[in-house]
Amino acid sequence: MTTKTNRQWRLAARPVGLIKDSDFTWTEESVPELGEGQILVQNKYISLDPTNRVWVTDVPSYLPPVGIGEVMRGGAIGEVIESRNAAFAVGDHVQGLLGWQDYYVGTGQGLQTLPKMAGVPLTAFMGLFSHIGLTAYFGLLDITKPKAGETLVVSAAAGAVGSLVGQIGKIKGMHVVGIAGSDEKCKWIVDDLGFDAAINYKTENVRESLKKHCPNGIDVDFENVGGQILDDVLSLMNLHGRISLCGAISGYNATEPVPGPYNFFSIISKRLRVEGFIVMDYYDRAQEAMNDLGQWLMQGKIKYKIDEADGLDKAPQALNKLFKGENVGKLVVKV
Amino acid sequence: MTTKTNRQWRLAARPVGLIKDSDFTWTEESVPELGEGQILVQNKYISLDPTNRVWVTDVPSYLPPVGIGEVMRGGAIGEVIESRNAAFAVGDHVQGLLGWQDYYVGTGQGLQTLPKMAGVPLTAFMGLFSHIGLTAYFGLLDITKPKAGETLVVSAAAGAVGSLVGQIGKIKGMHVVGIAGSDEKCKWIVDDLGFDAAINYKTENVRESLKKHCPNGIDVDFENVGGQILDDVLSLMNLHGRISLCGAISGYNATEPVPGPYNFFSIISKRLRVEGFIVMDYYDRAQEAMNDLGQWLMQGKIKYKIDEADGLDKAPQALNKLFKGENVGKLVVKV
Repeated sequence: MTTKTNRQWRLAARPVGLIKDSDFTWTEESVPELGEGQILVQNKYISLDPTNRVWVTDVPSYLPPVGIGEVMRGGAIGEVIESRNAAFAVGDHVQGLLGWQDYYVGTGQGLQTLPKMAGVPLTAFMGLFSHIGLTAYFGLLDITKPKAGETLVVSAAAGAVGSLVGQIGKIKGMHVVGIAGSDEKCKWIVDDLGFDAAINYKTENVRESLKKHCPNGIDVDFENVGGQILDDVLSLMNLHGRISLCGAISGYNATEPVPGPYNFFSIISKRLRVEGFIVMDYYDRAQEAMNDLGQWLMQGKIKYKIDEADGLDKAPQALNKLFKGENVGKLVVKV
Repeated sequence: MTTKTNRQWRLAARPVGLIKDSDFTWTEESVPELGEGQILVQNKYISLDPTNRVWVTDVPSYLPPVGIGEVMRGGAIGEVIESRNAAFAVGDHVQGLLGWQDYYVGTGQGLQTLPKMAGVPLTAFMGLFSHIGLTAYFGLLDITKPKAGETLVVSAAAGAVGSLVGQIGKIKGMHVVGIAGSDEKCKWIVDDLGFDAAINYKTENVRESLKKHCPNGIDVDFENVGGQILDDVLSLMNLHGRISLCGAISGYNATEPVPGPYNFFSIISKRLRVEGFIVMDYYDRAQEAMNDLGQWLMQGKIKYKIDEADGLDKAPQALNKLFKGENVGKLVVKV
């Protein structure tokens, strides 16, 4: 059997601010012989998510930091090309933390085998039937328990999660306002995805625009950004509003400690419920979400978009697109 | 009928930092004749609460700001001494927003008539059977749904609310750690009230002491203080912990905008639920709390302490004791 070369991005340093290529080392090593119980997976698509940036800090979070010298942690989809594990067959597509590399070798623990669905492209398992879809589904429906007629605000609304959240809000009968970073993104979420309104935070006064587009105040906020945008939202929340805290991307590249919102006290005066969540906690309920998301996709009620970077070597720079607001929809690297 | 003189503190200016006497005007006016449907109440005890400080800022909160020139808003207990309203009899004791003055004249709307309970002093309706008791009871039990064996941290633990919260936590089988501002307060809450441990935030490293006294982490935080103390607590919260946001007294006298906690992101990574509440929302369920609190008082399971300032003229300066950490238990002014 021919020896395969495994190209890898390994963490070289804790990044300061935006990620630089020099924060990683590009290594090439031979793929080893499989041991008993192991599988060899060839990565097809690597998922780039804001949480990648959290994982490379040395602050303990919901997963331990990626160690210096380790292959960069990353969600991915790959194809099983060799197997010495009865749970996986050659040709299976699997999803999980396969890492920023060409090949994964291991027991397959924690990997999910993707169902074979005719007519559904592999990228649907990145942008919809994935942690992205689960995040949007449970983060909105389970955490905030929205009601028809309520007003929902979504930040990072043209991102992978935000774009789904707004559409699910519409399916549930909410008035949905998205906040995004370009006119193109705003046009997409309103014209193609059916949001009621969009705010370009780079050119508009967010608070004034929120006032205009949320005449009845804000009942539910799906928060991806934090910082000033969260403060603007807090200032217009209704009594007993709910905030689903999914992310705080505005602070992920900060080089100084980032304070919480200045309107923190309004959580008391408006009796808000602010709840954080991590999609991993919902993996055992994934089927609930997949059933609904699949049905909505077939009914044409929900769309997803893939923003594809070409080549494993592009991964570090492509990740920065998330923080510069340059991606539309789900950002992936085609390996 | 003799004309009565009504001494009043009226708001003269928006205070900056700690309250000064000059932020108020001392006025004396005659009590008018009662109109049909009105009552005359002679104030006995005025309740001094951190929220008084919130009400005199010009920031909209859960009640509108006190207007310049208006009698200072304040909860109080008084005795009905004249009545042209069939709902109130002379001799009744009433409780409500009677204001910083000798006499209240009005329809009695929003006032509660206190039950006559043999052997229960009037001050019990300030320190226990009052907004204080309701705040502690519902803020802990309804907002955080604590379980026996969980660890509870209470800040401002020797204050009116905090001291009750810790005792209710003990009644519910929790491990209870209080944070307070003097050795005397710490001794009181441990030796007299039965807290498991106390931390003097003025002399100890709060985070290190929390680590020591909460070996299993923190499941529930009853937050009265905010600022650095909340950040220390956040750093030790367990997954799926709950924070009942009752107050943020550390910021009430700030002259610059106060940021939220620097550990705000841990709400996500630890999947915390942070919920604000205002006791007014629970007034319709008051009887539930009163039944339990009354029973616990009779069983000797709960104690309250009254910190009494003598004379209406002392009200503004006495209020500052809350922010200087000088009160122990429920701060009141005896009119």
